[in-house]
Amino acid sequence: MANIAIVGAGIIGSSWAIVFARAGRHVRIFDHRSANLARFEAQIRTAADPSALMAPIHVAGDLADALADAEYVQECIIEQVEAKAALFAELDRLAAPEAILASSTSSIGVSRFTRELAGRDRCIVVHPATPPHLLPAVEVVPAPWTPQASVERAFRQMRAVGQKPVLIRHETPGFVMNRLQGALLIEMFRAISDGLLSPADADTLIRDGFGLRWSFLGPLQGIDLNAPAGIADYLTRYGFMFEDLARERAGASGPVLTPALIEMLARAMRSDLPLEALPARRLWRDEKIAALRAIREES
Amino acid sequence: MANIAIVGAGIIGSSWAIVFARAGRHVRIFDHRSANLARFEAQIRTAADPSALMAPIHVAGDLADALADAEYVQECIIEQVEAKAALFAELDRLAAPEAILASSTSSIGVSRFTRELAGRDRCIVVHPATPPHLLPAVEVVPAPWTPQASVERAFRQMRAVGQKPVLIRHETPGFVMNRLQGALLIEMFRAISDGLLSPADADTLIRDGFGLRWSFLGPLQGIDLNAPAGIADYLTRYGFMFEDLARERAGASGPVLTPALIEMLARAMRSDLPLEALPARRLWRDEKIAALRAIREES
Repeated sequence: MANIAIVGAGIIGSSWAIVFARAGRHVRIFDHRSANLARFEAQIRTAADPSALMAPIHVAGDLADALADAEYVQECIIEQVEAKAALFAELDRLAAPEAILASSTSSIGVSRFTRELAGRDRCIVVHPATPPHLLPAVEVVPAPWTPQASVERAFRQMRAVGQKPVLIRHETPGFVMNRLQGALLIEMFRAISDGLLSPADADTLIRDGFGLRWSFLGPLQGIDLNAPAGIADYLTRYGFMFEDLARERAGASGPVLTPALIEMLARAMRSDLPLEALPARRLWRDEKIAALRAIREES
Repeated sequence: MANIAIVGAGIIGSSWAIVFARAGRHVRIFDHRSANLARFEAQIRTAADPSALMAPIHVAGDLADALADAEYVQECIIEQVEAKAALFAELDRLAAPEAILASSTSSIGVSRFTRELAGRDRCIVVHPATPPHLLPAVEVVPAPWTPQASVERAFRQMRAVGQKPVLIRHETPGFVMNRLQGALLIEMFRAISDGLLSPADADTLIRDGFGLRWSFLGPLQGIDLNAPAGIADYLTRYGFMFEDLARERAGASGPVLTPALIEMLARAMRSDLPLEALPARRLWRDEKIAALRAIREES
């Protein structure tokens, strides 16, 4: 049994269908809104080379048909807690008892709509970056009661189809991915509202600046390369800028960059990349950025 | 006279030297610290293919030698207001009267160290993303008294050597580029301190998520493609997430996303890309991201 059921055939559901089908999983998809199902096949054809799909995508006639033999269910319906609660009650009743029930919600903790279900232990948030067939990062967010076994099954499923799952250890509004994007966008909205620069220029600052390195190196890996002795050195030199900003904009009362945090960040970076490997890593970064800029310039 | 003087031969100064020399400008570079000058030639050789440099880089014996015939001076010394003040007084005395005196400072407004100078009208901040020979975004930040002519000369110089200058209309701590990076990093530091996820996973969320699209599309262009009717539609659907975050973390008292701001953002996006062009743009984005992921996977 390696079948996948997808419930909700909008932009996210269609993209998930590609993720699973190109990895050879049999996908059954259903949507209560017939308009979404009608658009679905055209959406798939536009987004993916048909020859890249290793297995058929079956449009199911009803929810029970979609769930038949599914070992993993990915929900992608509207972002409303009542709608998710009603659907998960149905999923828990109709799906095979051992199937994982995963929600694509970007902000509603699974504890808010599965608390009363007999099968709540198999319900978990698996929130993708949009669209998941292009952006592999996925947040896996358990409820307080979710057993480790369910977390591991979600991770195995995601890794098996080529996604990059990340564990968010407890539920928090907006989880982490959208909080990171949100922090950047809020600062951008404010700078534009304050008349500092135009919207197009705000985009240029990221797209032709840090965005070029963040596609190869995360933000922490990025600053790790920008001081001779790595991230601890960088934060010792420039941490004052972040503290000033946190005090001014974010109303921080204490320091954000405690010595314990800096030590933890340095330990994490150094366990991946020893200090003596930094110069070679900088050259690697430079080559990757040059290659990326060449791609961008092709029409 | 198309000569460039660079003062400060550390990481930033060396990278600026490549930017100008590969565009055919004659560069003279000087550093009061002989250790930096000693390292400089090796740094250039490591970072750039010598055949890519169209013009010689001359290591000057003293400041006056570096400034001889320069029409544009790029300062890249230590980030200390006293050191900048002392150097700019010298630059203003020694450089040709019509030369632009640009500072690479990432956070100190030029008004803080040039107020008393006879030539303060030609002093301006030209702050690059690091390293500028790879990341073209540049912030141009005038003082309150800087005439439009000096802003235009800085813009022309930057565009002529292939950089992407952005006007920051007035001085603000950290200007805008580092405020945007700072907002993202602060949120990341806090999520890690709160135990939500590991440092490596925080990097994955950006590198394998939004970072992949921010290298082609700025954050505003990115959300513009993620709702059927563009950015105004997106912010109407999901703006609550940003408001919640702004209230919780950033202590916002009023809304960040006012109707006037949403209208302005939509007008800016639509003047670049009409609504009917969004579907084609989404396909373009998808192709670029797929090409980028192929580059990343090469060793």
